[in-house]
Amino acid sequence: MNFNKVNTAILDKIKDAVGASNVFVDEESLANYAHDETEDLKYFPEVVVKPHDTGAVSALMKVCNAEGVPVTPRGGGTGLSGAALPVYGGVLLSMERFKKVIEIDTENLQATVEPGVITQEFMDAVGEFGLRYPVDPSSKGSCFIGGNVAHGSGGPRVVKYGTIREYILNLEVVLPDGQVIWTGANTLKYASGYNLTQLMIGSEGTLGVVTKIVTKLIPVIGHSVLMLASFAENEAACAAVSAVFRAGMTPSALEFMERKGVEWVIQYDGIQFDLKDNVNAFLMLEFDGDDMDTIFKDCEKANNVLEAHGCLEVLFADTAAQKEELWKMRRVMAESVKSNSVYKEEDTVVPRAALPKLISGIKEIGAKYGFDSVCYGHAGDGNLHVNIIKAGMSDEDWKHKLKFGITEIFELTAALGGTISGEHGIGLVQKDYMHLKYAEINLNIMRGIKQVFDPKGILNPGKIF
Amino acid sequence: MNFNKVNTAILDKIKDAVGASNVFVDEESLANYAHDETEDLKYFPEVVVKPHDTGAVSALMKVCNAEGVPVTPRGGGTGLSGAALPVYGGVLLSMERFKKVIEIDTENLQATVEPGVITQEFMDAVGEFGLRYPVDPSSKGSCFIGGNVAHGSGGPRVVKYGTIREYILNLEVVLPDGQVIWTGANTLKYASGYNLTQLMIGSEGTLGVVTKIVTKLIPVIGHSVLMLASFAENEAACAAVSAVFRAGMTPSALEFMERKGVEWVIQYDGIQFDLKDNVNAFLMLEFDGDDMDTIFKDCEKANNVLEAHGCLEVLFADTAAQKEELWKMRRVMAESVKSNSVYKEEDTVVPRAALPKLISGIKEIGAKYGFDSVCYGHAGDGNLHVNIIKAGMSDEDWKHKLKFGITEIFELTAALGGTISGEHGIGLVQKDYMHLKYAEINLNIMRGIKQVFDPKGILNPGKIF
Repeated sequence: MNFNKVNTAILDKIKDAVGASNVFVDEESLANYAHDETEDLKYFPEVVVKPHDTGAVSALMKVCNAEGVPVTPRGGGTGLSGAALPVYGGVLLSMERFKKVIEIDTENLQATVEPGVITQEFMDAVGEFGLRYPVDPSSKGSCFIGGNVAHGSGGPRVVKYGTIREYILNLEVVLPDGQVIWTGANTLKYASGYNLTQLMIGSEGTLGVVTKIVTKLIPVIGHSVLMLASFAENEAACAAVSAVFRAGMTPSALEFMERKGVEWVIQYDGIQFDLKDNVNAFLMLEFDGDDMDTIFKDCEKANNVLEAHGCLEVLFADTAAQKEELWKMRRVMAESVKSNSVYKEEDTVVPRAALPKLISGIKEIGAKYGFDSVCYGHAGDGNLHVNIIKAGMSDEDWKHKLKFGITEIFELTAALGGTISGEHGIGLVQKDYMHLKYAEINLNIMRGIKQVFDPKGILNPGKIF
Repeated sequence: MNFNKVNTAILDKIKDAVGASNVFVDEESLANYAHDETEDLKYFPEVVVKPHDTGAVSALMKVCNAEGVPVTPRGGGTGLSGAALPVYGGVLLSMERFKKVIEIDTENLQATVEPGVITQEFMDAVGEFGLRYPVDPSSKGSCFIGGNVAHGSGGPRVVKYGTIREYILNLEVVLPDGQVIWTGANTLKYASGYNLTQLMIGSEGTLGVVTKIVTKLIPVIGHSVLMLASFAENEAACAAVSAVFRAGMTPSALEFMERKGVEWVIQYDGIQFDLKDNVNAFLMLEFDGDDMDTIFKDCEKANNVLEAHGCLEVLFADTAAQKEELWKMRRVMAESVKSNSVYKEEDTVVPRAALPKLISGIKEIGAKYGFDSVCYGHAGDGNLHVNIIKAGMSDEDWKHKLKFGITEIFELTAALGGTISGEHGIGLVQKDYMHLKYAEINLNIMRGIKQVFDPKGILNPGKIF
């Protein structure tokens, strides 16, 4: 793609558009925004822009569209697919100053929020009104709700409460040419033409810049109990997952963790946990509701299902401190792995009964190519995060052969009816694998849609396809 | 738009493509498919085609795309927006022979089904496995699941279980040029590029012909109780709706019915019901779950909220027969109104706390223009079906002035944060009102997307925009 460089004349226009105090070209700023949480990738922008409002974003897009300068929007920078990396340089558009919770509408159980609000802070803000926004990705303490929209985020509660897709009612979006639209209406239902709200969700900042978000809220839930079930083998743990749902239960979370993940968390975070020798895999199950008796009945029923599927032991956590400790173990796993080894993370998702085949296949492929792996994730959704560990692989093989191993993992995922990302997105690092699951005609339709929104291709170029 | 007529040569090609026994040009067939349930509109196709499989649909689309002949797909013909009317003649593509429930996957709680399966029959089929597909529009006894996908259908259980959007995982689609794609994956999560599945849902058969549908299923629910609350005024009933949710409750249905609707149901269907003089509006609330104690607690809490909001009386139905009788009252309301008067139906939806303003505004607009109205619908979602009754309006005014009244209703809906259709779709009869809610740029984006899928514009032309 051919883009213009940000020369002095263009920089002046950008400063005019958004205000000089919101424009940064110092080396430190450029370096700070050259990476996200994806591996060790670095792409430097030519300029970092931090506007405060929709009007400034619109003015910026008008300049960049006219001048042919690429713009890469960025949320909290916690992405794992490289979607916020400015691979063609140009403008890095940080949404970090869009920090307002504009309205919490307690009459309609809705909120209007700016995209730069940290997800946990939004959850806390609505919690003060006895309301709940249940979409809590592991990075909820630092990711932005705007980035969550861009990636169609999930997290552990999807299994009962659904992804962000089920909570977003309406979006204010600045189009690549600077025009501003609302995608839908502030209603729980919409059958008024193509659903542009749903199209925008998960489009990874390639179709428009989200500047306001209207979400649905639900009543706060009174109680929960967390169970940690241990298994001798990965496959047995994975097989128990679909059994829980077949028994008619709907846990509010059902997470899988491999032994090595737990070992590394213990090392990394100093968590106290008695990891027994015969345990190789864990399931974490949460049941929530307003009535403790019903929750205990669910736990008992789940316990029976788990025992029938080879579970060695079940720990119950019902105090806030115990639950927090177990959740922490799951939440810091990504960081722990990252701190421990050179790694790559894939985000496989399959129909949940296929999980045993997926995990044993991943281990076989690893043995063939010489890499190790640590798997964990939202097993209740069939969503397994595969952390590929360099282990004994040579630098040469890591650089040149690993991609064939990843290809085999995705081919297996597709063969099992799954897809190559459940919640992390395609971004930069998965786009070469899209053809393993999707026909060229699917990709061409996506390219066509991109062209409708962004004829000059200036918004987050080089991503998805 | 310029389309070719189906001449003898083209008809022969169509017969070659789909088999002569699946092609109908007799007058009776053409008349049978010239209307759906939308008012008294009639548009005759030139030929009716009833293929059995994806290959035949693909072959048909190739011929029609090459020859420039319009194709209008049709499900059960129960639509209320005229989306299945062949306004430019050409081919009427009836999906009535796509009747197979292909797979009920009890391991993954998913099903694969053809679009011509009647919604209730699909619900019954999965019910035999102890599973539930909860999307039950009022027409569930005759509408097709394919039509439900095309319209993003709702129904009374949306308020707890969500619209069809939350149950469709993947679609097999024949594109306007005959190419066949799967839109996504059979997974509970998808973050692999633009969500073509969600884009297809609610696109009213304008982007492609759905030939296979993969749905999520949930466990069957053990129990439910239905409550019928009566009010002296529409506004009081509508104000009680948002109060129920603000109290932290999530009913599995919350329907509103105006007195006149109930009167007409009693007349039309001979339902036994003691309609008291001081009652002018009803709310129907359903609570469901696996535990009767919890349900009774919810009912009691709801009862308190309703009493605090001016409710006159609450009837409880907990036997199957009582519940069926009440549901029947709600379900036959559309038919009863239709049998009683010349009417037009609008499908307004607003944030639910705005319902009192919506309904009183509708009555004021009616008084101004001289039409009567019967309102009922899914109040829990803020979704009010407005049945406009000719009443004392002259034929002349009905023909020429009513549209200004409808315009005012939609302007009010939009001003309250709502949209012009919650679940019926835009189709033919609402398209002239789209600009009241959506900017020209929104409509142009929709037109652009249409162009990507259907460059020749042959698939269901004349709809939405």
